[in-house]
Amino acid sequence: MPTVNIEYSGTFIDQYELAMAQVYFLSGRQNDKAVFDYFFRKAPFNSGYAIFAGLGDLLKILENLRFCEKEIDYLFREGHDHNFLDYLKNFVFKGNVYSCKEGEVVFANEPIIRIEGNLIEAQLIETLLLNVINFQSLIATKASRIRHAAKNKLLLEFGLRRAQGPGGYFASKAAIIGGFDSTSNVKSASDLNFIASGTMAHSFIQSECDEFTAFSKFCQFSPQDSVLLLDTYSTLKSGLPNAIKVAKEMEKRGQRLKGIRLDSGDLAYLSKECRKILDQENLHYVQIIASNQLDEFVIESLMQQHSPIDVFGVGTKLATGYPDAALDGVYKLSEINDEPKIKLSESIAKISYPHRKQIYRVLNSDGTFFGADAVGLVQEEEINVMYHPFDPIGSLNIDHFEKEPLLQLALKNGKPLLNPCDIFDIKAFSAQRLSKLAEEYQRFSNAHVYKIGLSEKLKTIRDSLITQYREKKT
Amino acid sequence: MPTVNIEYSGTFIDQYELAMAQVYFLSGRQNDKAVFDYFFRKAPFNSGYAIFAGLGDLLKILENLRFCEKEIDYLFREGHDHNFLDYLKNFVFKGNVYSCKEGEVVFANEPIIRIEGNLIEAQLIETLLLNVINFQSLIATKASRIRHAAKNKLLLEFGLRRAQGPGGYFASKAAIIGGFDSTSNVKSASDLNFIASGTMAHSFIQSECDEFTAFSKFCQFSPQDSVLLLDTYSTLKSGLPNAIKVAKEMEKRGQRLKGIRLDSGDLAYLSKECRKILDQENLHYVQIIASNQLDEFVIESLMQQHSPIDVFGVGTKLATGYPDAALDGVYKLSEINDEPKIKLSESIAKISYPHRKQIYRVLNSDGTFFGADAVGLVQEEEINVMYHPFDPIGSLNIDHFEKEPLLQLALKNGKPLLNPCDIFDIKAFSAQRLSKLAEEYQRFSNAHVYKIGLSEKLKTIRDSLITQYREKKT
Repeated sequence: MPTVNIEYSGTFIDQYELAMAQVYFLSGRQNDKAVFDYFFRKAPFNSGYAIFAGLGDLLKILENLRFCEKEIDYLFREGHDHNFLDYLKNFVFKGNVYSCKEGEVVFANEPIIRIEGNLIEAQLIETLLLNVINFQSLIATKASRIRHAAKNKLLLEFGLRRAQGPGGYFASKAAIIGGFDSTSNVKSASDLNFIASGTMAHSFIQSECDEFTAFSKFCQFSPQDSVLLLDTYSTLKSGLPNAIKVAKEMEKRGQRLKGIRLDSGDLAYLSKECRKILDQENLHYVQIIASNQLDEFVIESLMQQHSPIDVFGVGTKLATGYPDAALDGVYKLSEINDEPKIKLSESIAKISYPHRKQIYRVLNSDGTFFGADAVGLVQEEEINVMYHPFDPIGSLNIDHFEKEPLLQLALKNGKPLLNPCDIFDIKAFSAQRLSKLAEEYQRFSNAHVYKIGLSEKLKTIRDSLITQYREKKT
Repeated sequence: MPTVNIEYSGTFIDQYELAMAQVYFLSGRQNDKAVFDYFFRKAPFNSGYAIFAGLGDLLKILENLRFCEKEIDYLFREGHDHNFLDYLKNFVFKGNVYSCKEGEVVFANEPIIRIEGNLIEAQLIETLLLNVINFQSLIATKASRIRHAAKNKLLLEFGLRRAQGPGGYFASKAAIIGGFDSTSNVKSASDLNFIASGTMAHSFIQSECDEFTAFSKFCQFSPQDSVLLLDTYSTLKSGLPNAIKVAKEMEKRGQRLKGIRLDSGDLAYLSKECRKILDQENLHYVQIIASNQLDEFVIESLMQQHSPIDVFGVGTKLATGYPDAALDGVYKLSEINDEPKIKLSESIAKISYPHRKQIYRVLNSDGTFFGADAVGLVQEEEINVMYHPFDPIGSLNIDHFEKEPLLQLALKNGKPLLNPCDIFDIKAFSAQRLSKLAEEYQRFSNAHVYKIGLSEKLKTIRDSLITQYREKKT
């Protein structure tokens, strides 16, 4: 029997995608053209923005999406039509993906990804797309907030043991995109071709006759990982003195102790005490790593207290996107055979936008973000005024500003157009984009509201569709 | 380039497991015998109990745990010692796993799993074990609470699109263990050999010229999935009348409409209205499926309002274990070469228990749970009194009760002893065990506290170790 292995293949979807695809197929609609949008309705963590992540994985999944024989057999047992299953046997995604770049700073209610394809392929990928993008964007956004709090300190992701099972694999990747420097997760680091980070566990120290022996052996046999965990017995009375003895031993061998790790107690107080004593011992180079239930708020507080911490290790709350745990991204139909489509709702804020669209980011003259994105139709040449999506009298003149289109063709007829990006290039791009967003959108409480508006053409089409649908019903 | 594929192989761990294993290896300790315990410190969701899940996956992973060539190459580039890497090339887990049965009702601070092996193998699997067991037990516990609220109604898991990426694969399995009847997740259902559940999306209805045509085609071409989503335009004014027309059409063909689905609005009001009108039309057999941000509290309220809902579809809050998002399970060393070990802490509640242990569940004469588990050493014959783990004067006489040992050998020398269980057998076992736990432990607010106590021998050894360690430190 093989090990547990989770593959993003054809059946990594909800059953209803297959039920709908079968109906499209049997009613002869497999060549109908469809356009879907991905967007979310509310940024997580009451954040003023989100970081878009997961695109690289999504493109890899779409390019290789197949139904294998075992999957077809299962679907047959489930009662699916055999002609439809013959179609699925040869299924390959041949659509187009237009998308913001991975790492982009994005906002609620704008179409971050546009999928164009035949009705079956565009419908079938819904769950896959949502599963990959919602989670990675959630974690990249959380990581970005932690980076904001930690300023230029080193950040390590430590969450695999409390992550949502194999979700931890994606969490580590998305944490890097959002601004982390490394992870303890060996598989993610290995697949992304960088060095994983680690220290030691309490069990290692317990397994030896005493703490000094444990520290000493660890630095002798794993000097590249020589970060000593101080709180197995007592951080200040036992851990720190033993670490100092070992650091002096290492100096005699021409080596340097990398750091000490604080994993319980008052991290502000302990880091100050440890720094003072290490400096008195001329061990200025020994870094202080802090961990234990950290998040952006605890780190912000530690920074405000001038805690001399060099590295923060963040686990559970990052890797699970606590406290939100999910991004509410949705996938909505906007066009069938060039006809505009919307999803109605009792609340106008939940009505989707029709047709193929582009996002135009409004820029200040120095290239920073003005604080507004206009959503227009792809064929529009120039948007001079953007309209509030729900408030009938709200509008904003954006005539004299530069505008940058954000959606680019990323996958054409099923083939990715670009080589996969290095994760640290995506991280750098994300940081560079975030540096253009004013501080008031990045603060943790009452973040300033970034404006999303519609072009006049888009608003007119949407409003006339609403009227048309509302008259039709009953 | 292949698709995204997440395998629980040798590197699905934290870097520090490798750092420590390398030190154990290079200092000649690979044959030292180690014992570790898995336990959690607090049940999630302020629940009075938790459901233990993930054991089947864990055993599969341990039996097949290997480091492949690509992984060894990566570890070489990371700077690991080549003799240690030679050891990893041939690494196979040969230890023993003692465990509660999957689906068991378990409580905080009792050793649910015991791992015995050589020091390297027992240390290396820490992150893997925590990753699998923490998450699946979190979700099984959430599912069990939702089952409690929903009484005997049908429960469907719908969370894949908002799940934490590939974590959704495990979430669907664990939801079944905790009491769900099916899932929309085709891959999980397929691997577990049951039929996935599904309805239809708004996009399907939007893709047709009108709602009636969409409903009608869907039931014609996917009658096995004929649950109609009513709220695309208006649940009562458009959705329900169209569904009734389609149901009558189906009757003429000798078919029956399976159900209608309510996905927005006031579910109590809408379900009552729909039931009334369906019954007036002699469509008593058409089921009402409700979804939209459900959890145990919303379902409890809907049940208290006597909402005539037959099936609940639960997504995000189940699949992400909202609001907790993680179970705090830990993995602690309890023995090295037969010597007892504990992890100290400033707080006595966080001090671990030494030696190899067994859990004895105290039973009433009718076989129901008395409300107490005694933790003793494996070789103890009879425990007559159990002692509070922290309160020095708390004790409970359990002399005249039957006691059931919960830990059984599940994997011996690296080989599983039992065939993998059918997921519905695990679910049935879990429900049967939960039926023995009194209602006051299952209620949502201020659940009664189930007692965990130590045998006299275990308490004496632990207390003397605490004294010994505290005297040693300076």
